[in-house]
Parts: sequence; C-alpha cells; structure tokens
Amino acid sequence: MRIVKSIPQLRKLVAAQRTKGRSIGFVPTMGALHEGHLSLIRLAQRKSKYVVVSIFVNPAQFGPKEDLAKYPRDLKRDAALCRSAGADLVFAPRARDVYPDNYHTYVTVGQLSEGLCGASRPGHFKGVATVVAKLFNMVQPDVAVFGQKDAQQAAVIRQLARDLDFPVRIVVGPIVRERDGLAMSSRNAYLTPAERAQAPALHHALNLAKWLVRSGRRESGMVKREMMRMIAREAPLGEVDYVGIVNNRTLEPITKVTSDTLVALAVKFPSARLIDNVVIR
Amino acid sequence: MRIVKSIPQLRKLVAAQRTKGRSIGFVPTMGALHEGHLSLIRLAQRKSKYVVVSIFVNPAQFGPKEDLAKYPRDLKRDAALCRSAGADLVFAPRARDVYPDNYHTYVTVGQLSEGLCGASRPGHFKGVATVVAKLFNMVQPDVAVFGQKDAQQAAVIRQLARDLDFPVRIVVGPIVRERDGLAMSSRNAYLTPAERAQAPALHHALNLAKWLVRSGRRESGMVKREMMRMIAREAPLGEVDYVGIVNNRTLEPITKVTSDTLVALAVKFPSARLIDNVVIR
Repeated sequence: MRIVKSIPQLRKLVAAQRTKGRSIGFVPTMGALHEGHLSLIRLAQRKSKYVVVSIFVNPAQFGPKEDLAKYPRDLKRDAALCRSAGADLVFAPRARDVYPDNYHTYVTVGQLSEGLCGASRPGHFKGVATVVAKLFNMVQPDVAVFGQKDAQQAAVIRQLARDLDFPVRIVVGPIVRERDGLAMSSRNAYLTPAERAQAPALHHALNLAKWLVRSGRRESGMVKREMMRMIAREAPLGEVDYVGIVNNRTLEPITKVTSDTLVALAVKFPSARLIDNVVIR
Repeated sequence: MRIVKSIPQLRKLVAAQRTKGRSIGFVPTMGALHEGHLSLIRLAQRKSKYVVVSIFVNPAQFGPKEDLAKYPRDLKRDAALCRSAGADLVFAPRARDVYPDNYHTYVTVGQLSEGLCGASRPGHFKGVATVVAKLFNMVQPDVAVFGQKDAQQAAVIRQLARDLDFPVRIVVGPIVRERDGLAMSSRNAYLTPAERAQAPALHHALNLAKWLVRSGRRESGMVKREMMRMIAREAPLGEVDYVGIVNNRTLEPITKVTSDTLVALAVKFPSARLIDNVVIR
C-alpha cells in the first residue's frame, strides 16, 4: 500500500492502474478511522480493483466555532488501518495543496443541504460538496463509497454526482454500530464516560420510531414527540438539535411516515454533537 | 463527423477514442458559429487528436431579461461549419438532459466573477462555471479551448479548472475580427445597419488605449476617459456599460497600466450588448 501526499503523484499512480484496465474505488475520509470506515473500504474492494482512501480534514466543511483544530489526526495509525482493510493507496494531501492561495471556487447543492444538519451547520454541505468535487477530479474513481451514518451527506453527494455529471457510481454502505447500538463516529472519542453511557439513546429513539411506525402509528409529529421524550429520559446530558422525519430521497419533511422515509436526529452533548438515522422502507 | 444529442452516447464515443490512446480536445460553444469559433476548433485540432464541439445555449447563464429565447439556433448550419473546421464530434444536448427536474447544483467562482461583465450580468458566470463543470465531466477532455473575446469568462474557467482540480489544460485562442476591427460575436447579427456601422468604435477605443499607454500615458482614469470620449463620438447609438482596466490575472482594477493589463469594455446598443478587450503586455 502506498501513502501519497502530492496530487500529481496520486494522479500518476491512479492513471497507471487505469491503463492496466483496473477499476478505481474511492473512499473519502477525514481520518480518525474506525470500523465504520473500514467497512466502507472493504465494500469499495468488492466494487473495484484498486482502492484509494483519502484522509483529509477538510477545513471548508467546519464552521468557525466547530472542532477543526481539535479533530483527531494520526496518519500512521490511520494508514495501518487502511492497509489492514485492504486499501491500495492512501492519499493524504496537504491543506495548502487542496486550497492554495487565491482559492475561490465553491460547489453548492441546493435544497438537500438546507434542512437537518444543514440548518445547524450553515456552509457545511457547501464545504463537503466542494471537497468531494475536487477529490473526484483528483482521483477520477469509477465507484465512490460513502457511509449511511451521514445520510444527508450521502444524499448531497448523490445529487452532486448526478447534477454535475461526474462519471462515478455512488455506493452507500450501512451504519456500523458499537455493541450497545451507538453509531460509530470519530467524534465518539470526545465523549466523557457519562456522556458515552447516555449516547445509545439516539439509537434507542430510532428503534422506538421504527416500532411505532410498524405498529401503525405513522403521524410524524407524534413519532418525534415520543423520540424526544425518550432522549430526554435516557440522555439528560444531551440536548436534541433536531429530529427529522423526511422523504429519504428529497429530504423534505413529511407529516405521515410512508415507505422510504428517513428518520434522522442530532443530539448535542457538552463534548460532542452526535448524529444517527434509520431508513424506514 | 458525428452529431450526438445523448450524454451516454457522447461518453461512449469519447471513451472509444480514449481507449485508442487519442487525446481529446473540447470547444464548448452556444452555436451561432462564426469564424472566431472555427479558429478555436482549428486550435483544438492542433492540440489534440479528437475534437469535440458542444453546441448548447445554456439557460443558466442568461439573466431573466436577456436574449435566451431569441438567441440564434441552427444546428444544421453549425454542424456543417464544425465539419468544415475539422471537428470530429458535435455534441448538442437537450436542455432537459443537461438540467433535469430537481436540478440543484451550482458552481461559483468568487472574485473574478464580480467585476466587469459580472457586475451587469449577475449570475452569468455562475451559469457559465456550472455548465462548463458539467461539460468537462461529460466530455472529460485533455484540452479545452476558449476564446479571448470573452476574457473574463476565460479567466473564470482557468480558475474553475485550477480550483476544482479538473484534469484538463485550458487554452485560450485569440480574438478574430471583422475587416473593420469589430470582434466577431454571435450577437453582431442582432445589430441594425446603423448600429453595425458604429460598432467598430469598441475596437478603436481599445487601440486608443494601447496607443496612449505606448506613448507613456499610463494613468487608468485618464485612459478610460479618453476611451469613453471616443465611443461617445463614434458610436452615439451605444451606451458604455463599463470600461475596465484591470490586472489580467486577478481582474482587479489598477490605477496605473503595467505589463499584463487587461483593458475590457462593454457597450450597449439598442439591439445588442457588445464586448471587446485587449491585453497590454
């Protein structure tokens, strides 16, 4: 497995693989890898012959008061994990090469970017769409793999790829959870033991939503209220940022749960903001 | 020469050429071709093995009060001209394929888009950057050729390609002029005979600027005033939209003409808004 920092070097190595007729898989990450990421790398391996993992903490997707500075960075550890999961190349560009002086171009994906996390993180999805467009042009993958944990991000990327005609297939891998149900996230490491103990409340609230819908109670307002009540009870250290019940494709709020509904939520603990979701088919 | 409307068909034909090791040249146009476009097609031929010309009147780059509806469209004539200039493929997509329902993604190139034409055509360069990003992803050219007549557009595209890491070389071809000096433009066809007779005033004013600078008078304010005076005298039917004296790379206004200065202007006649420019080295 190669570790590459330079963009021209990346292009050269990927082009050599393409010349050999090998399809290119791509898993963009911000590092701080966990089993969720590794499952995406393995998924990319099944979908392509040569797997590139990017590790880049993208300043453009962090708000001014967010955790850019403290976001965990450990390239050695991450590269070892990539190798163990079967990646062929780790691409870890420098911020000054990704956003050189006099950088001025941004990609915005309207509508999908506005609700849910977009409402509490203005500019976040603009930063995501921009860096993903850039990475797609650097790597030129045939397949790119994203995680369902970031459901809104996955929807934004699908729309980006479709709207800007990127010649890439978007694949979304399932959420990987801790044994107690907490969705894996690099930000879980920020949690205090007391917060960590309460964090499965997100998963429990989503299970409650599934159960309510299965038992015929499909009114979104009621489902949300029950979820909020459960979180208040199980996670008194957390504060609900949002609970969204939306069309899984358009992310538009719906008043009655139907098939293909996304139930998504964000909870702010003092040490970290966590998100989770479930799709009701 | 092939004429193709479907995006998948385009991709297939271009991929077949790439597989044969042929480099791909690309000339995006809005049709209504004239000798200026043809010179770009010939330039693309010298820089690549297989030349794709797109013909697409891009709704996203027209303002609500602009000439989208009346913009001349004649695919047969345009295709014949492309063939005569040596194009290999004409790509003429349908608007509903380029901007399908639920289209939401836009590319903005800040700073460069704001002055000159950007000031009087808000949203214009956002529409240009978006469609060019899309076309780059559809065609995946090695080289793309643009005209210096649209100097600000060329600067925006260079920035777009650099910032979003498109693997394409941008080449800019020189302005082609009528015998009396009028820069060739599809919109010249809108001019009445009286307007047409006055239209070379733009070129004359640019020549005056060059001459003033060569004779040591480099103060931008003075140069602009002399240019405006000449246009008022030679083109009483026209109204100056702007005269800009800017750094050719950053498009930032400068107070004293130095090397690599762009002198650009736009004049509104009742029937058409014309632009022209000269670079002073």
